[in-house]
Amino acid sequence: MKIMLGALALMLGVQGANAKPAAPASPRRLVIVDDDMIGLNGVPLLLLQSPDVEVLGITTTSGSVWRDTATAYALRTLEILGRTDVPVVPGATFPLLNSAEATKRWEGQYGRLVFKGPWTDYWPGDTIQEHPGSTDPTKVPDLPIGNPKTKPSAEIAAAFLVRMVKAHPGEITLFATGPMTNIAIAQSLDPSFAANVKEILYMGGSLAPHQVLEGPSAEQFAREFVNSPRREFNIRWDPEAAKIFAHAPWKKISMIPVDPSTGTQWTRAFLDGLKPAHTPLTDLFQTGLEPGYPMWDEIVAMAWLNPEIVTKDETLWVDFETSQTAAYGDTLSWTESYRPHLGEQAQRVILSVDRAKMEAAMARLYMRPVGKAAK
Amino acid sequence: MKIMLGALALMLGVQGANAKPAAPASPRRLVIVDDDMIGLNGVPLLLLQSPDVEVLGITTTSGSVWRDTATAYALRTLEILGRTDVPVVPGATFPLLNSAEATKRWEGQYGRLVFKGPWTDYWPGDTIQEHPGSTDPTKVPDLPIGNPKTKPSAEIAAAFLVRMVKAHPGEITLFATGPMTNIAIAQSLDPSFAANVKEILYMGGSLAPHQVLEGPSAEQFAREFVNSPRREFNIRWDPEAAKIFAHAPWKKISMIPVDPSTGTQWTRAFLDGLKPAHTPLTDLFQTGLEPGYPMWDEIVAMAWLNPEIVTKDETLWVDFETSQTAAYGDTLSWTESYRPHLGEQAQRVILSVDRAKMEAAMARLYMRPVGKAAK
Repeated sequence: MKIMLGALALMLGVQGANAKPAAPASPRRLVIVDDDMIGLNGVPLLLLQSPDVEVLGITTTSGSVWRDTATAYALRTLEILGRTDVPVVPGATFPLLNSAEATKRWEGQYGRLVFKGPWTDYWPGDTIQEHPGSTDPTKVPDLPIGNPKTKPSAEIAAAFLVRMVKAHPGEITLFATGPMTNIAIAQSLDPSFAANVKEILYMGGSLAPHQVLEGPSAEQFAREFVNSPRREFNIRWDPEAAKIFAHAPWKKISMIPVDPSTGTQWTRAFLDGLKPAHTPLTDLFQTGLEPGYPMWDEIVAMAWLNPEIVTKDETLWVDFETSQTAAYGDTLSWTESYRPHLGEQAQRVILSVDRAKMEAAMARLYMRPVGKAAK
Repeated sequence: MKIMLGALALMLGVQGANAKPAAPASPRRLVIVDDDMIGLNGVPLLLLQSPDVEVLGITTTSGSVWRDTATAYALRTLEILGRTDVPVVPGATFPLLNSAEATKRWEGQYGRLVFKGPWTDYWPGDTIQEHPGSTDPTKVPDLPIGNPKTKPSAEIAAAFLVRMVKAHPGEITLFATGPMTNIAIAQSLDPSFAANVKEILYMGGSLAPHQVLEGPSAEQFAREFVNSPRREFNIRWDPEAAKIFAHAPWKKISMIPVDPSTGTQWTRAFLDGLKPAHTPLTDLFQTGLEPGYPMWDEIVAMAWLNPEIVTKDETLWVDFETSQTAAYGDTLSWTESYRPHLGEQAQRVILSVDRAKMEAAMARLYMRPVGKAAK
């Protein structure tokens, strides 16, 4: 789940592009990020700014935007950061089974969905959210952060995921912050895939979020929780892929549902706190980032980088509904004595985070110099 | 949704039985209560204690207990209160379509339900809740409040509901605090039924409740909200009846879902506050009522008797899922611009109440003398 941050990264490139790659001083923790829109908020930037982390690649999927647009964002973001050494590997354009036509039919029966990614034809009712743009998967609009000059990898995301995990069995941490299509295809290609991933953390699903913070943005998001507490976009875009993911034999799964994000928010005060660093990144945060949005994907990165920020978690067995009825794409969860024993896995579900601690840890990363040489 | 209050009313009878009926001094507001277990908590007692309210009858349905047990509780409660002038009219024993067999099949697919009324074979996991007792619909156990000597009406609940509403068109307020089976049958018998009811208030459905109060009981109930925020027992027992209810052309519908009940709780302090009245009723509250339970049905009565207790409500369009998939019996709700326009109605949904105001108003009613003469 990701929101365009417009002009955030407009001028970020200069310092990053001139930085010279350096060899790592010590073994780094290996990660791959599978995401539906790579901007300057979200997981990749935080991981790229972490000295002990090596990002092996970014795989892209449709979700908030079409796959090709997500790919362009990823390429351009890496150009800006001077990190074109990180491969961008395009993945699935369409969900496995879900479709625009099925979505329209479903909405006729069960009411309009709030956010439908590139299938969002209009926003019903009163809202402050931006329209996500074009619905043609073959067209990539001009990006507000500039269009990339670099090209994506010729490999396919799922093949890249399988190949990397085979090359580093038990060593790679996988971050999944978009729909699960690539992950599901990787697992379908290679049944040993999930078991050889060190751990997977994902932003997806929703249990019972409720408004925690004040403000117009928090109120807008809270309206959605009242009427559809179990629905979250990443899962709803490709419920069948989510179910394949949920049934795969991972060693360790951390779920970051919508719930903890209600206690987080991009604020002017947080951005002001970054000012003293005066890096190209922190300078851009001042003008480019629109306060108000929850820190959805940031929690995924920070709960792994700084586990002490997690204030409440629970082990639940999790699955996702795939019948095309009212709950299509909804999160199903159980404590152990209630679960159906149909292949669902135990997941660590993160329910709340310490906002102040998380912001402090994020600020430290954002305020570091950018570029590979800085690591 | 009702929990047995055991010995609460053991000795209540004496004063009530000797009280002499008196003619009403002024026109009273006419009500009928359709309920699945009539004890001394819940709607009927509060309405019977209200001077300006005339309870035309109590219709019974299966739900928390089987219909015959609910009927016995209603009869005995009225004997104790000296209100055997109020008819008790037995309704449906089984839900329209749902069954014990379908429930077992569903649980195999989607996990165990928490509370299944008289189909509750056991409580999985760690819980402080009592077992609801026998599962044989033909057997009425000995009641902790004593067995009734009076008999129920020979009429059938749905026929009584239709007859009464025809006799008092536009004048009767209907309280539905159990499953909707009787209401659905009444509407099926007489398509003009709903439109001739003055208004209907019901305890049923669940939007996105979360724990508000502290304590072991509040924590127990909250565990259910995390994994099934849209599921509530009254609706889940008979989802098809709930859907028929939700599509009927009522003049005014007030929904009291689980949500506001999380801010209420029977407490020792509240019971202590009743002591000074020293009526047989308030004396019995001291020993017979187990603190800890939310005031589910009480909110239904009090939101009507004292509308000022409502602190948050919203107009939503409401329906209930009847496909036998993950969401079977779940509450579906929409704001106007999202609803599917398939016959769902606008409902006033009560989301929170002022606990102190509600308890004060309840205390005034409980502390009044009991029996018809007292009105």
